[in-house]
Amino acid sequence: MNTFGQYFRLTTFGESHGAAIGGVIDGCPAGLTPDTDFVQRELNRRRPGQSDITTSRQEADQVEWLSGIYDGKTTGSPIAFMVRNTNQHSTDYDNLKNVFRPSHADYVYALKYGHRDHRGGGRSSARETISRVVAGAIAKQILREQHDVSITAYTSQVGDIVLDKPYTALDFKLIEETPVRCPDRSVAEKMHRLIREVQAEGDTVGGVITCVCQGVPAGWGNPVFGKLHAMLAAAMMGINAAKGFDYGMGFEGIARRGSEMNDIFENRDGQIRTRTNYSGGIQGGISNGEDIYFRVAFKPVATLLREQPTVDSDGNATVLKARGRHDPCVLPRAVPVVEAMAAMTLLDCMLAAQVKI
Amino acid sequence: MNTFGQYFRLTTFGESHGAAIGGVIDGCPAGLTPDTDFVQRELNRRRPGQSDITTSRQEADQVEWLSGIYDGKTTGSPIAFMVRNTNQHSTDYDNLKNVFRPSHADYVYALKYGHRDHRGGGRSSARETISRVVAGAIAKQILREQHDVSITAYTSQVGDIVLDKPYTALDFKLIEETPVRCPDRSVAEKMHRLIREVQAEGDTVGGVITCVCQGVPAGWGNPVFGKLHAMLAAAMMGINAAKGFDYGMGFEGIARRGSEMNDIFENRDGQIRTRTNYSGGIQGGISNGEDIYFRVAFKPVATLLREQPTVDSDGNATVLKARGRHDPCVLPRAVPVVEAMAAMTLLDCMLAAQVKI
Amino acid sequence: MNTFGQYFRLTTFGESHGAAIGGVIDGCPAGLTPDTDFVQRELNRRRPGQSDITTSRQEADQVEWLSGIYDGKTTGSPIAFMVRNTNQHSTDYDNLKNVFRPSHADYVYALKYGHRDHRGGGRSSARETISRVVAGAIAKQILREQHDVSITAYTSQVGDIVLDKPYTALDFKLIEETPVRCPDRSVAEKMHRLIREVQAEGDTVGGVITCVCQGVPAGWGNPVFGKLHAMLAAAMMGINAAKGFDYGMGFEGIARRGSEMNDIFENRDGQIRTRTNYSGGIQGGISNGEDIYFRVAFKPVATLLREQPTVDSDGNATVLKARGRHDPCVLPRAVPVVEAMAAMTLLDCMLAAQVKI
Amino acid sequence: MNTFGQYFRLTTFGESHGAAIGGVIDGCPAGLTPDTDFVQRELNRRRPGQSDITTSRQEADQVEWLSGIYDGKTTGSPIAFMVRNTNQHSTDYDNLKNVFRPSHADYVYALKYGHRDHRGGGRSSARETISRVVAGAIAKQILREQHDVSITAYTSQVGDIVLDKPYTALDFKLIEETPVRCPDRSVAEKMHRLIREVQAEGDTVGGVITCVCQGVPAGWGNPVFGKLHAMLAAAMMGINAAKGFDYGMGFEGIARRGSEMNDIFENRDGQIRTRTNYSGGIQGGISNGEDIYFRVAFKPVATLLREQPTVDSDGNATVLKARGRHDPCVLPRAVPVVEAMAAMTLLDCMLAAQVKI
Repeated sequence: MNTFGQYFRLTTFGESHGAAIGGVIDGCPAGLTPDTDFVQRELNRRRPGQSDITTSRQEADQVEWLSGIYDGKTTGSPIAFMVRNTNQHSTDYDNLKNVFRPSHADYVYALKYGHRDHRGGGRSSARETISRVVAGAIAKQILREQHDVSITAYTSQVGDIVLDKPYTALDFKLIEETPVRCPDRSVAEKMHRLIREVQAEGDTVGGVITCVCQGVPAGWGNPVFGKLHAMLAAAMMGINAAKGFDYGMGFEGIARRGSEMNDIFENRDGQIRTRTNYSGGIQGGISNGEDIYFRVAFKPVATLLREQPTVDSDGNATVLKARGRHDPCVLPRAVPVVEAMAAMTLLDCMLAAQVKI
Repeated sequence: MNTFGQYFRLTTFGESHGAAIGGVIDGCPAGLTPDTDFVQRELNRRRPGQSDITTSRQEADQVEWLSGIYDGKTTGSPIAFMVRNTNQHSTDYDNLKNVFRPSHADYVYALKYGHRDHRGGGRSSARETISRVVAGAIAKQILREQHDVSITAYTSQVGDIVLDKPYTALDFKLIEETPVRCPDRSVAEKMHRLIREVQAEGDTVGGVITCVCQGVPAGWGNPVFGKLHAMLAAAMMGINAAKGFDYGMGFEGIARRGSEMNDIFENRDGQIRTRTNYSGGIQGGISNGEDIYFRVAFKPVATLLREQPTVDSDGNATVLKARGRHDPCVLPRAVPVVEAMAAMTLLDCMLAAQVKI
Repeated sequence: MNTFGQYFRLTTFGESHGAAIGGVIDGCPAGLTPDTDFVQRELNRRRPGQSDITTSRQEADQVEWLSGIYDGKTTGSPIAFMVRNTNQHSTDYDNLKNVFRPSHADYVYALKYGHRDHRGGGRSSARETISRVVAGAIAKQILREQHDVSITAYTSQVGDIVLDKPYTALDFKLIEETPVRCPDRSVAEKMHRLIREVQAEGDTVGGVITCVCQGVPAGWGNPVFGKLHAMLAAAMMGINAAKGFDYGMGFEGIARRGSEMNDIFENRDGQIRTRTNYSGGIQGGISNGEDIYFRVAFKPVATLLREQPTVDSDGNATVLKARGRHDPCVLPRAVPVVEAMAAMTLLDCMLAAQVKI
Repeated sequence: MNTFGQYFRLTTFGESHGAAIGGVIDGCPAGLTPDTDFVQRELNRRRPGQSDITTSRQEADQVEWLSGIYDGKTTGSPIAFMVRNTNQHSTDYDNLKNVFRPSHADYVYALKYGHRDHRGGGRSSARETISRVVAGAIAKQILREQHDVSITAYTSQVGDIVLDKPYTALDFKLIEETPVRCPDRSVAEKMHRLIREVQAEGDTVGGVITCVCQGVPAGWGNPVFGKLHAMLAAAMMGINAAKGFDYGMGFEGIARRGSEMNDIFENRDGQIRTRTNYSGGIQGGISNGEDIYFRVAFKPVATLLREQPTVDSDGNATVLKARGRHDPCVLPRAVPVVEAMAAMTLLDCMLAAQVKI
């Protein structure tokens, strides 16, 4: 399944070392003037080669629109787009053709499909997320224009370095000013140092991204199997290397009592609001008008620049050492992907809520 | 959206105090002899009134089959079933008709639908999970008969009482012998005591359920947006009161290095297996033949048997004190629900994997 | 697949001789006061035993609501309903247990599912359409209340007796006054006589139902694969015994020239309308505000009350003579089913059109 | 909705005068060696400029693959492809910018989307069917390789010229030898002459395409709402200018008796077969192993090369005369599109039938 969403539907295609990465958006509202500069800026945040802690693969990652836009405006028809792959070093992967990299998708893809494109991970490469960032930028624009919704993610943990402040105490403007995308300069520096150390050892490290969605109106999401947080969980767990998700008080709140964690309703200037927001902006699967916030855990990158034992496709033991250009930590470049998936999920809910049920 | 699954599709219906709770299963393989005793035993595990730490609402929760079974065997046609509600005390809820209970779905349902069934939470009641347990029991039976898959969940944390052992060190037979469903008698006793204390204060407490799926063949699940762990996440986050999900090393593994967490492949008796299983049995969204394990965090029950301030539907401040019969901790009765959702998710993947793509 | 619709989703269940026939409607707008008398009247139009040309099976076909309605109003939760089967003569079918009736689903069901409920055709029985009539009645009510849409079907051909008048020349009030549901007394009488003759011979006959949808606003339906007429075609061809569908000028218009068949636009009192309506109210898959009309062809009923050669499940030649109670012509009782399917299709489009794309 | 199919899912994009027409196929089996020559031959059958009765727009219609194929074989990943538009004469449409062409989608698109691409009909252009022909060619190849299924369509009526022979009396090899794609030279010539006459008058004419699917195994399709013929109907009615569909005996058989039309089962060399095939190879929505055949009615092309009155977007009366290059009869070039849609529908059923329900 390569389609995401029910109303704003993104179908993605492309492999790391194929001709192009791209997608088709079906269900984008007509009459929108897509901000292509913004789309490109978002792509640039995800692009390799931004700093000393990201892969040095050089890709312009320029988006080309193929359909659905006329006279600068969307027409309601499918919006197809693509980014040509230009800087593949496919020969870097020749040694991997019949070898299964540990904790990668190689083995299960080989098993499931028989024939696989091993170059750069093929379809399982994080390069596929380019399509999500493009569609997510469109989704962000619609959410901002129609409901003044803003979506902000940042790195809140790398290895054992934790940003131990609530999001309300942070200055989101600082996020883009640090290479790790953590809005606290001192913590960001520690994270950066840790990633450099790990990188020097040919090793990798994981972490947590926190995401905050502000301005979401009450009433988005659905009961039972269509809960907004279940949709967010599926969206986030669909990102490469994601291992966990929680929202509101999440895993941390379970040790507390109900009397501590309940969000008391109050009438604030004629609006029903909650005094606290332990619920994370969602109750019964439906947004309640407070900020939505959640966390996504990412594992250490599986590609190590050191030797690892493994087996080949015939089951023979072998030793693997990755060549190629790889990130020691996925988090900085995953920040825009988390935002993109959140944006598409919320836009889907926005469109769904237009149906009067 | 009240339908779960793409191949084995469960559509549920019913409210806490309506005529019945039930569902329709579309896509159940033909020729199965449903083990109705097993279905009933699973329902009994979810049923209220099992112990001193669950609500005293008395419901036989007897399942009635309406279609899809002939001569004791499934026919491939939709299987409809229902459980009549018999022990509603709807008047317990009269005081809630126009009042929004904190951290419940009342407010957002009222906002979204205008007209709502406030009795016992209506559609948002955990009583809806009866339908999931019925369908989950069928799913478990199919998984067991066709692939010898077993699915086992247990309470691994209540408040700050944590079962600090890996699942491999536990005796799953003990789970059903403790009222909290924790397979370590000493920890279970502490959990039980904590719940009793909290209950005595009219308060509630949350916790974590761990679930282990054994025997899942390699090759179930899909790339990109159809990842098995994303499906599990959505399934689990769709359970009432769930706040978090992680699998494999999850949130706990992020502080470690890639070199510590990678699962090295080896040839074990002609089969490709991994030496360790930090991945939690899933790589690239597809099962790799190792055990699948994950955790689900549950918040403290929102209904307190003590006074709480809130507002009514006109926005007037008021004070609420719940009547009715409520669990101080959702976990013991959520264990079979977690298993049921896992079973349906895995069965869906099993059926999907029959399509040769 | 036992679910119809994307927004107003009906999932049906039940077999001819099982416990009950029923369904679950997911996506019905909240706040509706279902007109249960109207639902019952629609069921009565479909019910057996209405006249001397329909089966004498006696069924009250009383609908029982199981969920989704509180205080007489829909809540936005799934509406489950059922009609208990009470007058099965299952032993009438004992001789059919291992015999394949010609031009019935028996053989393909046996092949596909292995185990089948042969009694009264099981799931393939037209009795399943009860669920469609119930949901269709709800859909009709919503369409009428929200957009003053009316949906009217009638028998326009039986065997070679053709009602050769455009629908605009007919008085729809006469439809229910003739047992064949043809709004022209003289033609209706001929049809009735033909059906009686055929019945006397133990034979059966087919025909055409015409359906007219008035008041549908412009803008319902979608381009490419979501065309309104494609949805109608699928809905109609899903009715038992349907063999053909056309709309607007349909099969009859193909011999004419484009210059004869184009519908010229004009400005009628400030509204853009067409002078003629050969298009049948749909252009490019989207309603244009004119009347939608279409035809559905039905084959002669396959069950004959005379001997027919066939084979049993072992492939042995045998002779079959149906017992049981059967209609010699499906059309009179199919009229409300055609209307129901049209209503659900249009309601789905109405809800879809609320999403601003 | 721009996606067709549940298992073999084609999402199409592109406008007549945009950058490209293309699509993404999700769910194509891995390990297939796509016959790109065959794909191109199929595209050539649909291409304009083939004869004196098709539009003179010159397009190479060369397909470019963007993903999903590695080392000449499919990988199970989405197959994206596109055909660049090269020979647009967009200025031919300048006079149509604010004018609604009679019996076209212009008015309803303008109403629904506000902003529309009027050039060459934009998204509603039959040029969109290029994507269907590409995906249909892949589907044909899989059906042929895996089940020896062949799909053959031909023009069986143009205006009042009817090919009055059953398909069993025809030599399908003649189809491609006549410009109208009718496998009877004498009838084909009459059709050709009629089209030339109509064309000379600046007028257009409709007709019927018959399609025959041979080799389909018994057991494809589903009961109730997933009937194979309902899927075929939706597929065919989704083709531009289609107005009607019937299968088997269809509209023509309704005047006959059940005793004439029932298909008697017999044991033919150990296989259960039917003596006749009035059912058209489908019973109860499921293929029975006999040939599947059906008809599709097409209206006369709406674009006339003569003056027609109409209104503009402000509702003012105006007169329209099409420029541009247009077919006087859609049928010859629609033949490969009918085959493509049939192929995709059948492939979807083939894949669905792999799930053991």
